[in-house]
Amino acid sequence: MMVLSSVGSASSSPIAAVFSAALLLFYFSDTTLGAPCPINGLPILRNISDLPQDNYGRPGLSHMTVAGSVLHGMKEVEIWLQTFAPGSETPIHRHSCEEVFVVLKGSGTLYLAETHGNFPGKPIEFPIFVNSTLHIPINDAHQVKNTSHEDLQVLVIISRPPIKVYVRHPFP
Amino acid sequence: MMVLSSVGSASSSPIAAVFSAALLLFYFSDTTLGAPCPINGLPILRNISDLPQDNYGRPGLSHMTVAGSVLHGMKEVEIWLQTFAPGSETPIHRHSCEEVFVVLKGSGTLYLAETHGNFPGKPIEFPIFVNSTLHIPINDAHQVKNTSHEDLQVLVIISRPPIKVYVRHPFP
Repeated sequence: MMVLSSVGSASSSPIAAVFSAALLLFYFSDTTLGAPCPINGLPILRNISDLPQDNYGRPGLSHMTVAGSVLHGMKEVEIWLQTFAPGSETPIHRHSCEEVFVVLKGSGTLYLAETHGNFPGKPIEFPIFVNSTLHIPINDAHQVKNTSHEDLQVLVIISRPPIKVYVRHPFP
Repeated sequence: MMVLSSVGSASSSPIAAVFSAALLLFYFSDTTLGAPCPINGLPILRNISDLPQDNYGRPGLSHMTVAGSVLHGMKEVEIWLQTFAPGSETPIHRHSCEEVFVVLKGSGTLYLAETHGNFPGKPIEFPIFVNSTLHIPINDAHQVKNTSHEDLQVLVIISRPPIKVYVRHPFP
């Protein structure tokens, strides 16, 4: 008997839904060993080392789009790998999408200020470090800076790509 | 003069918008050195090592919600850190949200099949490896398995949390 059911919303732990549902849905027989070939024209599997990088005119920055709207057809999430040399930083900026950082290497500082109208308040300074994660409240002004003496590498996840950013330049 | 402008959609590279716009928006004065204190009741900064983990009844799995809807109030993206011991695997499942994997450690296999109605086609097998990334087309059936002899660790990003999963159990 085939049963289609949706679980998760009502679960106290969403991921538990992944592993607790027992629904007869799929017929998964033998597999084809596939090269990382495109499906619907988009490559499913990519080596991050092979992705193009750019610094967008910011010395000390290396930006790679791991999964993006323009490059890979993502519609709901976009993921970047950014490496900041010591002393380098993002602009102070804000945006109306969700953003999460996962710090993969090094350490640095997040400056974060609640935004009132178009103006941020006094920023709070968060020391960030390898294996830490942080999320930026929607529209709050923020800046990430490598305040250490080694490279800072972060994985950045945003919703609703492509991102629309409001930025102040030059920096105070 | 204050100028408010939205950039990005029309840019050939969305992230370029972050670094090319030059808008007078923010007043960022001195900062407060903040402990990782909550803003709006949610902790901004978290040590991933301190997050709770669970295996949801699946031997060999370690699941941590890095940023989640239930735990952290995320509304548009959710991020998990999952570690699979050799031989362990996800169920074969599908969901109607976007999903991206970033392989942080180890290697394994992704089985992916286009879904026709409720039934997946013949899966294609992708060898996945450290520093690779892959995205799962919406609603396509898939399974990640650690087919190696060392731990496989992945960061998983999904849109539209909490996730609603359709899963087949037991496995063929």
